[in-house]
Parts: sequence; C-alpha cells; structure tokens
Amino acid sequence: MYEIGIFNAKILTMDKDFSIINNGTILIKNGKIDKIVKSDLDLENFLVEKKIDATGKLIMPGLINVHTHSAMTIFRGFADDIALQEWLHKYIFPNEAKFIDKENVRLGTTLAVAEMLLSGTTTYNDMYFFVNEAAEVTQKMGMRALLSEGIIDYPTPCSANPELGIKNTEELLQQWQNNQLIKIAISAHSPYSCSSDLLKKVKKFSDKNNIKLHIHLAETRWEFDEIMRLYSQTPTEYLHHLGILDENMIAAHSVHLTDSDIDLFAKYKVGVAHNPECNMKLASGVAPIPKLLSRGVKVGIGTDGVASNNNLDLFQDVRSAAFLHKLSNSNPLVTNAKEMVYMATMGGASVLGFEKEIGSIEVGKNADLIIIDLMKPHLIPIYDIYSQIVFSMTGNDVETSIINGKIVMENRIIPNFSFTDLWLQMNELSQRIKKSEFINRYNF
Amino acid sequence: MYEIGIFNAKILTMDKDFSIINNGTILIKNGKIDKIVKSDLDLENFLVEKKIDATGKLIMPGLINVHTHSAMTIFRGFADDIALQEWLHKYIFPNEAKFIDKENVRLGTTLAVAEMLLSGTTTYNDMYFFVNEAAEVTQKMGMRALLSEGIIDYPTPCSANPELGIKNTEELLQQWQNNQLIKIAISAHSPYSCSSDLLKKVKKFSDKNNIKLHIHLAETRWEFDEIMRLYSQTPTEYLHHLGILDENMIAAHSVHLTDSDIDLFAKYKVGVAHNPECNMKLASGVAPIPKLLSRGVKVGIGTDGVASNNNLDLFQDVRSAAFLHKLSNSNPLVTNAKEMVYMATMGGASVLGFEKEIGSIEVGKNADLIIIDLMKPHLIPIYDIYSQIVFSMTGNDVETSIINGKIVMENRIIPNFSFTDLWLQMNELSQRIKKSEFINRYNF
Repeated sequence: MYEIGIFNAKILTMDKDFSIINNGTILIKNGKIDKIVKSDLDLENFLVEKKIDATGKLIMPGLINVHTHSAMTIFRGFADDIALQEWLHKYIFPNEAKFIDKENVRLGTTLAVAEMLLSGTTTYNDMYFFVNEAAEVTQKMGMRALLSEGIIDYPTPCSANPELGIKNTEELLQQWQNNQLIKIAISAHSPYSCSSDLLKKVKKFSDKNNIKLHIHLAETRWEFDEIMRLYSQTPTEYLHHLGILDENMIAAHSVHLTDSDIDLFAKYKVGVAHNPECNMKLASGVAPIPKLLSRGVKVGIGTDGVASNNNLDLFQDVRSAAFLHKLSNSNPLVTNAKEMVYMATMGGASVLGFEKEIGSIEVGKNADLIIIDLMKPHLIPIYDIYSQIVFSMTGNDVETSIINGKIVMENRIIPNFSFTDLWLQMNELSQRIKKSEFINRYNF
Repeated sequence: MYEIGIFNAKILTMDKDFSIINNGTILIKNGKIDKIVKSDLDLENFLVEKKIDATGKLIMPGLINVHTHSAMTIFRGFADDIALQEWLHKYIFPNEAKFIDKENVRLGTTLAVAEMLLSGTTTYNDMYFFVNEAAEVTQKMGMRALLSEGIIDYPTPCSANPELGIKNTEELLQQWQNNQLIKIAISAHSPYSCSSDLLKKVKKFSDKNNIKLHIHLAETRWEFDEIMRLYSQTPTEYLHHLGILDENMIAAHSVHLTDSDIDLFAKYKVGVAHNPECNMKLASGVAPIPKLLSRGVKVGIGTDGVASNNNLDLFQDVRSAAFLHKLSNSNPLVTNAKEMVYMATMGGASVLGFEKEIGSIEVGKNADLIIIDLMKPHLIPIYDIYSQIVFSMTGNDVETSIINGKIVMENRIIPNFSFTDLWLQMNELSQRIKKSEFINRYNF
C-alpha cells in the first residue's frame, strides 16, 4: 500500500543530472519516495491511499531555509528603516528580553511554520530561544527542522549564562534523538558576541556529538573591523585559529570574506547560509556567492528572521539572490536560474548535512516535495522552468506541501490549524508590544 | 444611488497628510470617490448597489506601473541569464520581428492586463507596437493606461519607418480622445536608437498635442559611453541640448546620471520611471533614486517588460527598490517604506501627469483602489502598514481591484475572462516560438 501517489506530474527532480520528467508518477511509502515512473502510469494497478492528479502542475523538492529565527515573526516589521546597531540595541534586544518566553516562542514559531508550509519551505534551520517549545510546535505541524539555542556571552531570555545554553543543548539532543523531523545543532551566536573560550567549548560539543555548529559570521563591516581591531585577523581567520572551521560549521551571512577566507571555507568544507534580503535590507553588503560556488563551497539560502526580511517566503529570497549577484558583479551571466534553484534545494540540504535524505526527488529519499499550480497568468508561457521558479513564482504559487510523506498543506489549507485562533493570540501580543516602553512608532 | 460602498475599511489614503483611517466608509459614484466617512457608518441609510464589507482588510490606492512593454508577456523567461546585447540582438529583436503582430499583441496584452489586475496595478504606462490593439484589450478589461508606440530609426513590427510611427500616434490620439481609461503618449525609444532629427520631431509632436513623451534614458553604461563618444555629452545633456527635457518627459531607467544630469531633471521637472528589478537582472546599474527624491524629482516604479523581470507584480518591484537603495548606499536609512509606497501610487501618478485624477483615495478622484486581505500568516502582526506593504506583501494578497468605479477583479477572479482560453492560445504560440530558428534553449 502506497500512502500517496502523484500522477500526470511534471517533475523537477534536482537529481545529479538535473532530470526533468515530463509526465511521471511518484509513489510514496513509509514517508519515502518509493518509486518514480518516468511515464504516464495507470495508478489503477497500484494500491494507493491518496491519489493526487498533478495535471498542469509542477512537482519539485521542498525548499530548504538554511537560516532563520522563526519566533521573531512576533516582531514582523515593528522597527524598520533603522540603522543596525540602533535596531538591535534599542528595539530587538530589549523587546526580546521582555517578550520572548516559552509561550511566545510557541506562538511565533506556529506563525512561522504556518507561513513556511504555505510558501513551499519543507525544512528550516533555526537559531533562537526555548528550542524545546519550537521543536514541539514544528514536529506537531509536521515540518522538518534543524534547531539550536542561540548561545552568547550574555544572559538570554532562556539561559542566564552560556553554560546553561550548552546544558540545554545537551538535553535537547537527548530529548529529540531519533526523531524523524527534528534534529538538534549547537549555536554560537557570533565571533563578536561569544568569547574565544565559549567558541572553543561550543566546537568541542559539536565534535563530541558530531552535530552542526550554527554561527553568524562576517555579517557586517563593523564586525569585520572589530575582530580585526581585537585580534588582527579577519572573523574567518579568527575562527580558524580557534579551530572552529570544519564541515559541521554553518556560517550564516558570510558577507565580508577575503579571498583567503574563501580559501579557508573551501579547504575546511564550511557550509554557507546566504541571506540576500536581510543583507540588502540592513545594508550589510553582498556575500561573494559566485566566488564561493566556483570554489565548490556548499551554499544554501535563508530568509533570516522576519524582523529583517519581512517574510519567510524563500522563493522571494531566491529571486533576490539572483538579482543581487548579477547587479553587484555588473554581469548578468555570473549566476543562472538553475544554480539558484539548486542552492534552495540540494545546496541547502548539503549545508545542513541532510543531502542524503532530502533536497531532490529521488528514490529512497524522504518525500519532502511541493506541488505548484502552473495555470496562472503570471506563470505562462513557460520556456525554462528554472527561470519561471526563480523570476516569476512566489511561495503563494505552492498549492500543496508534503513532508516526510505527509500532506502538511493542501490547496492552501493547513490541516487542523486555526488561523483565527493564531491571529487572536498574535493580535493580543502585538498590542502589548506596541504599548512597550521601548516603542513609540506604529501606525496601525 | 452609489455604485459601490466599502465599509468597515482600514483606509490608507496616500493623501498629502498620509492619513490613515482606521474604520471608514468609501462611497463611489460615477466612477469617482464621492464620499469618505472617517467613522463606522451604517450603510443602511444610503442607496448602494454593491456593498463590500472590508472587515480585516486594507483599502489603498491601486498601484501605478510607470514603465512596461506589456505584450512581451509572450516572451516571459524565454532567454534569461544572457548578456544584454546578445539578449537584444539574438533573442528579442529577431523574435519580435517574427512574432509581434496584431493578434499576438492582443494576446500578450490580455495576459499582461490579467496579471496586473490580479496583482493590484490599476494603471500602466506602456511603450510597444500595435497600440490600438493593446488599447482595445485594456479598455475592454477595464484597466487604465497611458499607451504609446515605440518609435525608433529602424523598421518595427508595426511601422516601416519612424514617420509612420508618428502618423500612427496621431491617429491613436484621435481614436482615443476623451476616453476615460486610455490616454495616448508619444515615445522615442532611446537616445541611441533614434536620430537627433527624430528626437526633435517627437518632441515637437509632444509639444503640439501637450502629451507625455516616453523614452528610455541612460539605462546602461554602454549607452552612457556611446552617447559620450558620439556627442561628448551625457545622454541627459544630449537630450537637453536637443530641447527635449520638460515636464512631459518620462525617462525610463535613468540609471547613469551625473549630478549635473540630476540638476537638469530637477530644473526641467522630468519624471523618472524607476525599474529596479530589470536594472538588477540585466546588471545595468542602480538609479540614484534617493538623490532624485531629495531634489524633488517625480519618481514612479515600473516593472519593465516581463522578458526582463519576469512578472508584472509591482509589489515585488517596490520591495526590490527598497532593498536596492539601502544596499547600494550602504545605508538602511536612505529610503523608507512610506516613500516607497508613495512612489508606487502618488509618485507614479505625478510621473504620468495623472496626479489630479488617481494615486490617492480622496474625494473627487477616480475610484482606482485595491482591497487587501490582511488575515494571512505572512501579514500578521502589523505594527507599520507601510512596512507591511513594502516588505511582506505581494500582489497575490490583493483580493479585489476597482478601476474607475468598476470591479475589475473580485476575490481573485476577473469577471468575463477565461484563463483556459488564454492559456490554450498562449501555449500554441509559445510552442511556435520554441520551434523558432532563433531559439534552441528550453526545458519545459
């Protein structure tokens, strides 16, 4: 018995040959892609619980968001058009201290997961607080994630000191071991907010448990200059000299890299989480993605938190990435649409260490895929499917999302999910945030 | 009797005070905004043909797309990731010569108008061929437009020589005079594709008829260098010395401007059509929009044709514009969300010379407005409505569009419009284009 059979499908596999199947069938069993038939197939001959007719639709791997802070949905657009340091110190940090607790992480993560399921993301990589709550919400909604607690030298909403953050991570690892959807990583917030000692402890923990180490790196010119001032090394060199660089490292942003930093990334197989829209919105700079790709560095695409984006629709970030690198290199040939789709699927899977399980539609992989209705004015005609995905689509074109063989969103509806309840709670919370002593700017 | 009454509305007026009405009513009569009541109003006391309950919804002016080539929808994504000159000469020009005729302009314009109505654009400014056909389609679908035939030194799909283009424009002016939706402008394609003599003729025609003159200006570095080489003047100075600059001029792109060019724009009240996504995708450069705005120059936002965008969702261009200028000025404060919304509404209206008729929700103006459903995961919570519009929305969030007091799209459906018929015709055409001798790259 197959759980799901999708027939009459145009399938963008993202396998190593970039195969595109014009009219195929996908059969899903035990959460995995069990069969791909490259022709029209009469499903009458198979026992299939749920049949999906994909006529006029595209099936592609679900997108992988390699860097976000999901519960920050509660701060969507609450302090825009402000310089980074003021934004962080006057708005974000004080309000996180005041409003980020278990309940609000549940609420913010629920909103984030709903938004991602509705826009075609099937896996996300998160760094935030109260990770157990985020994990419970994510698992309940059927989404795949790599989660970590943000560890930093200072007290956070969930840990009075970084040692507690590491202890929490140890507990999370035990709590979620062998879970099919939730994996745990360890995070160090950044080179400028963690001491050398803390960075080394976090690396040791990553080594001992062979888990990913998620860190913000070389995001701003300020960070680059500050680390140079303190250590006479670039942020990347500094982490290298601490022994942090290796294939478990996920370096979010990676904007301010020298050529020798890029050499280090390539040599140590560091994974990069590229956040084009956040980098543009906060005017942080342009990550050297074409150079990184030409050196074979693993690169995925992330939204960052919605306070600096301001949505979790990864299709939009893919489009912005394509625009950004063409413009900043004064060369429309420097990247192409196929590379962009690769980064958002297989590239992201590689960065998270999930390349054997997700990122492409291949037999034996987890059934994480999305169905896109192509019968819309802005999606016709089609000459090149990669161009259409990158330059014409948004997440709203995703009709149905399947994760681990389960339908988590169908015809734009998330099963067993009440938007009204969520809205009521979010509205109540945002009214309180608006009244916060820290904020005096809102118009709605 | 009022034609439409919209009640329980949150109204973003974009009037000179940027008034936001929290719970108001808009009454529409004879295609115009007849009354705006700034409180909850019992519509029972009014005779209203169509009542729209806007609870939980935002009403704002329809967006104004100040530069496109709408029938180019037939070439959506057919030749991406290619250098500009190869793109133009190997793909665009030969295929325009082969496929642009009256029938295909009808088809491409129908698709474009459908896409714009579905994404919240209520007025567009177009430069293309077979303008009478485009005008008929646009008027039939109830959309507002400023249309012009692209006039150039060489033969075009509709005019064997530029004189014929001017004659066509004269006929268009007569044909469409006093039409409520369609206005006619004259176009000269660009300083590099029109002789000095032709540019002066076009200007004389614009003067005689007091109509807008739509031109591509200073789009690429190549154009800047070429005009400098030929005339030892910047493209803007060159047009100035020909006497072209005045308040009727709409300068599309305006990327490569010197400070003294900006002085000329300010002095002669030239309007700018900013196309952020096209400029990024073709790596043309960054228009100095913050400088132009600080000098009081009229600026609107355009998509350009979909062959270089690849969709007509102006919300996405607004978002890209915000990102682009923050990044390229290394300053997140250089523009703000309110300015971006202004450019897409009142700014665009001013560029087209329609500032007294459209662009804001004010009594006496034409009823061109859009209704946006705010009850969606990616649009909650709301702190700042301008931030939400610029950074979180896409055109797909538009639920209903009203132009000239008529509902042209309601609940995502365009009345009396068959998408299936359009798809069948577009599919047939795109199959023929794919088989064209000029093209050998497609995968779908």
